[in-house]
Amino acid sequence: MNIHIITIGDEILIGQIVDTNSAWMGQQLNLSGFRVTAIKTVGDELEAITGNIRTSIKDADVILLTGGLGATKDDITKKAIAEFLGVGMYFDQDVYDRICYFFNKLGRKPNEAHRLQSYMPETVQLLTNKMGTAPGMWFEHEGKILVSMPGVPYEMKYLMGAEVIPRLKSKFGTKAIVHHTIITAGHGETALALRIEKIESSLPEGVKIAYLPNLGTVRIRVSAYGNGNETEEELNDKVGAVVDEIKKELGDAVFGEGEDNLSLSLGRMLLERNMTMATAESCTGGNIAARIVQNPGSSAYFKGGVVAYSNALKMGSLNVKESTLRANGAVSEATVREMVQGAVGNLGVDLAIAVSGIAGPGGGTPDKPVGTIWLAVGDKEQVRTRLLKLGKDRLKNIEYTTKQALNMARLFVLHPSKNKENILE
Amino acid sequence: MNIHIITIGDEILIGQIVDTNSAWMGQQLNLSGFRVTAIKTVGDELEAITGNIRTSIKDADVILLTGGLGATKDDITKKAIAEFLGVGMYFDQDVYDRICYFFNKLGRKPNEAHRLQSYMPETVQLLTNKMGTAPGMWFEHEGKILVSMPGVPYEMKYLMGAEVIPRLKSKFGTKAIVHHTIITAGHGETALALRIEKIESSLPEGVKIAYLPNLGTVRIRVSAYGNGNETEEELNDKVGAVVDEIKKELGDAVFGEGEDNLSLSLGRMLLERNMTMATAESCTGGNIAARIVQNPGSSAYFKGGVVAYSNALKMGSLNVKESTLRANGAVSEATVREMVQGAVGNLGVDLAIAVSGIAGPGGGTPDKPVGTIWLAVGDKEQVRTRLLKLGKDRLKNIEYTTKQALNMARLFVLHPSKNKENILE
Repeated sequence: MNIHIITIGDEILIGQIVDTNSAWMGQQLNLSGFRVTAIKTVGDELEAITGNIRTSIKDADVILLTGGLGATKDDITKKAIAEFLGVGMYFDQDVYDRICYFFNKLGRKPNEAHRLQSYMPETVQLLTNKMGTAPGMWFEHEGKILVSMPGVPYEMKYLMGAEVIPRLKSKFGTKAIVHHTIITAGHGETALALRIEKIESSLPEGVKIAYLPNLGTVRIRVSAYGNGNETEEELNDKVGAVVDEIKKELGDAVFGEGEDNLSLSLGRMLLERNMTMATAESCTGGNIAARIVQNPGSSAYFKGGVVAYSNALKMGSLNVKESTLRANGAVSEATVREMVQGAVGNLGVDLAIAVSGIAGPGGGTPDKPVGTIWLAVGDKEQVRTRLLKLGKDRLKNIEYTTKQALNMARLFVLHPSKNKENILE
Repeated sequence: MNIHIITIGDEILIGQIVDTNSAWMGQQLNLSGFRVTAIKTVGDELEAITGNIRTSIKDADVILLTGGLGATKDDITKKAIAEFLGVGMYFDQDVYDRICYFFNKLGRKPNEAHRLQSYMPETVQLLTNKMGTAPGMWFEHEGKILVSMPGVPYEMKYLMGAEVIPRLKSKFGTKAIVHHTIITAGHGETALALRIEKIESSLPEGVKIAYLPNLGTVRIRVSAYGNGNETEEELNDKVGAVVDEIKKELGDAVFGEGEDNLSLSLGRMLLERNMTMATAESCTGGNIAARIVQNPGSSAYFKGGVVAYSNALKMGSLNVKESTLRANGAVSEATVREMVQGAVGNLGVDLAIAVSGIAGPGGGTPDKPVGTIWLAVGDKEQVRTRLLKLGKDRLKNIEYTTKQALNMARLFVLHPSKNKENILE
């Protein structure tokens, strides 16, 4: 069974945005055992869209279109589909009612464009889009399937996960593929690969390991591809055994599985131990706190924090001593140490994370170049610190520091008894 | 003159890497006045490649292929091209000598794969690749042009800049294309479309408008496609006139152009006025601060903030009164008002943003359902507030609220004299 993805949008053809939707779709379909054999991007033009549907339908069993659905004039995907199918358009009262309901809730009124948005090609099966007003559209045509989704990434992702992939599975079945992903922090891809070299060189047949690094964390995906005779349970057992071996070998470098992330893992550990925490951030500017707060229910363990971007705030809100700042500078071990102590004391929490550094691209000095970042994690009794020496890319520095800080906090909670400081390399 | 880009690689189809090559090529070609009408990605398979060349050659005058060239990839692209052209392969001594020279310099020896890499389709014109061993290949076939480049980004970029674009220019001349993008906040795509309906329905020939919405902001792109007789200056004037009309019509809904964003725009305005600001965030958890700090140089106007996730912190760090919290709850107009006042007073800044809400998915009550979020922006003299009623998606709520807060702050700085409160709808 072959799938073609067709992405619609002039903005992709002129390179204004990168088509990350197709990559995500390819990945998800692959993980579900489906095969994408072509990805195409075409402009917002009726003939280009119908022409490419006509070409793709020859090779593909399923065509997934994204983009070109919505309330403004440049939305022509629906017309292209109707023309390809040779059907007319009808006004769908349910779609319009949903738009009206949505707008009423916001205290606004739908307009003429929204009324036009409610016209659908006649043979459509609508897919409810809980993330927006434009529904997904599913068509069956001469034994082939044509699906159209909005191009807004979270709407497309919702429709793929809740509607399209389940329907494809029930329609086509899949040759069993089982994946299991574990997530690590604190070690690079090659260091991890060396540590599990023996496991990797004696994998059972049909089992593969892939490393997916991402700025401070590395996901290790173990996959078992069925030969047609194995049940999903058998494949699960195969994968499970390898995953257990890897976890044993990597120890506390592993912090989670599947779609887990560092802040979720830290949050779970704090919840279990009935602990609370706070943040004291300078160069990360609230990014660590924001990452923690992304998790539902974080208010149970996260009490808040200070974005102490100025020295005045470091002193006023975190009790960092003026003499410390004068003697060591804001980017120093002594400062982050006092920031932790100030946050633990002033905010009344069990644990605090502190960061101070030069994120760049400007602001460096010969002895503290751009990328010099001090991290600290601690409680009332001890503070552990760490110095990062990163590059000049501001956003990358902030992101990497955020992950390292969350991982330091995780290891602090995991190993509270080690009273030696600077245990991290 | 139409160009198709064909990218070759299984790793793109399974979403292991995102195809950024095509976006870059699209951008460069567009800037040179060429029009890309389709981008296709196909797997490392002979039939897929020849099949797509055959289809594309019908619509395109030029096909640019990337990927599938090199010593490890089995050189499948070259075979596909030779098959499409109906020609044989020959051993190119110059190509092989260059590979040998390159390897000798590294103290290594070329192997059998490198010898095979030196076979070329018979009608090729070679394009010297100064960044690697696989040359670019240029073919002319029945009035059409077919070019093949390695997929390694810096090799492809070198060949595009040094060889392909100059040759295309001398072959076809260029029909100029000019784009200009303005960015708006605070209004939906359809509301904007209605406001500029008259402009859009009387656009000069060759001019197009596209809307690119993204959770709280909408980019409006105005493009002029030359007819061959117009100079770039004339097209610039055409686009400029439409852009000016739209800006005039949309007024303060427009906050920037090109690659601008809300926090950059706000930062610029604060810098110009020599003003400082701070944040007091509850449900956005530091996300507004983090967005501001992403901008280099933000320390000149951003002093810091409080992530007052707990009520204790709202009282302790922002002087929110216990009686206010008791009478109105943490998610209330009165609370965000006091958060702004506390932040302005305690952090010693000209302006503060405050947010308190229920980001979800849990935590709602009948009179304050999930998605109820209060925003406030103010200075010593006045505070403007706004109530958002959003959905249940936590991350979407945080992101949308962040953009609305930044936009409220921008409008506050822009219209300081309006002393009327709640001016936003």
